[in-house]
Amino acid sequence: MGIRAVGAPADTNLLSQGELHARLREVGEQRYHHRHPFHLMMHEGSLTRGQLQAWALNRYYYQSRIPIKDAIILSRSEDPDFRRAWRKRVVDHDGDTSADGGIRRWLKLAEATGLDPERVVGGDEVLPATRYAVNEYLNLVRNRPLLEAVASSLTELFSRDLISLRMDRLREHYPWLSGGLDYFEARLHQAPEDAQFALNYAFENAHTRSEQETVIQALRDKCDILWAQLDALYFAYVQPGWPPPGAFRIEGA
Amino acid sequence: MGIRAVGAPADTNLLSQGELHARLREVGEQRYHHRHPFHLMMHEGSLTRGQLQAWALNRYYYQSRIPIKDAIILSRSEDPDFRRAWRKRVVDHDGDTSADGGIRRWLKLAEATGLDPERVVGGDEVLPATRYAVNEYLNLVRNRPLLEAVASSLTELFSRDLISLRMDRLREHYPWLSGGLDYFEARLHQAPEDAQFALNYAFENAHTRSEQETVIQALRDKCDILWAQLDALYFAYVQPGWPPPGAFRIEGA
Repeated sequence: MGIRAVGAPADTNLLSQGELHARLREVGEQRYHHRHPFHLMMHEGSLTRGQLQAWALNRYYYQSRIPIKDAIILSRSEDPDFRRAWRKRVVDHDGDTSADGGIRRWLKLAEATGLDPERVVGGDEVLPATRYAVNEYLNLVRNRPLLEAVASSLTELFSRDLISLRMDRLREHYPWLSGGLDYFEARLHQAPEDAQFALNYAFENAHTRSEQETVIQALRDKCDILWAQLDALYFAYVQPGWPPPGAFRIEGA
Repeated sequence: MGIRAVGAPADTNLLSQGELHARLREVGEQRYHHRHPFHLMMHEGSLTRGQLQAWALNRYYYQSRIPIKDAIILSRSEDPDFRRAWRKRVVDHDGDTSADGGIRRWLKLAEATGLDPERVVGGDEVLPATRYAVNEYLNLVRNRPLLEAVASSLTELFSRDLISLRMDRLREHYPWLSGGLDYFEARLHQAPEDAQFALNYAFENAHTRSEQETVIQALRDKCDILWAQLDALYFAYVQPGWPPPGAFRIEGA
């Protein structure tokens, strides 16, 4: 049944593409930030303008680091085909001029909440916990195998549904934000393209079951990074608290 | 008035050792975690055993990374005198055998709260936000100038007072913890020695006012790192929340 090198038996535990995809979807169902109470409040319209400002200002730090994250991944691949495909992400966020791109569009959203864009760009008021979580994303793509760095982007598998819902709900509950939704509009088609590329890459480059498990773990870790950013927001600006999925729970609480 | 190289005028804004020390104390007064509500609750006896477990388990992650942090600093100095002095810190935490050292003593404290030490060492239940804050400390000492890496340890200027108070209050409010306080006992003399060394180093190696300001900023950043760990605990296990000093505040809140 085909050629097989001595000492390299087939990994009979290898997941099929469909099985791997199912495992990744399961992670998203349990740990993606669409379940976070801060987002649930946003979508039911119970956040105040000040809380939306805190969200826009803190998440700007995340957005501003995305092209840095993608440039690190670019810098780690020796394959021009991969680099050409991945380069699109840097362009999506940085734009072709200073007047476009995802970062500029996020700033437009922050402005629509009533914040001075210079204050947002300055970043002095970002929660330390936001910075630490985002910086951990940079650590991940810098230090772990390229396969895992790519796999950590797979949260984009779940972002289209969240963005569609969010745009509807923001327009409904916060009509004064409607002029600032270009970022999400663009992500509606960018994210699924990116997710499909990363999913194929992960399947083709995880050659053993144990590598497939590192792909799944990288997605879990990225979900933690998104979740922790909302925890920090909720803690500082909403209240009260709860431990994230899988963390230590006090007995009887 | 002594020899002065052409083109190297005296930096007339340079702080004296006393002035620098006063600026550092001011940072500690405002931002050190002795002011954090989680610690205030601990000292007034209003934390539950479960909350103390959460604290011991999460802070174990911090303790376990301290000798790594100090080894990074060791690795960055080309001065044998400096390295010999700094090496003491690694020994203080790792011990001379697996039965002693600060990490082992912290584990004894965690055991005294009723936790299985293997569960604590495993680390699976540490809050992501704890890991991110601690990892940021490693980033700081790895990536920023050695002067700032050393200065970030200056929170030890303030730890003796906090530890003295804490030992009294833990014995008073949580007598079942009394057998687990060896860690603090050892730090009572270790921390002031370390702080004095780092303070002298910072003064002698900050040659301009602007370098002195980076020393002060490194201490602020370290205070943020300690504070964020307690925020994460409070958010997950106590409630309700507030923004840390200097962070974005919602207007009218």
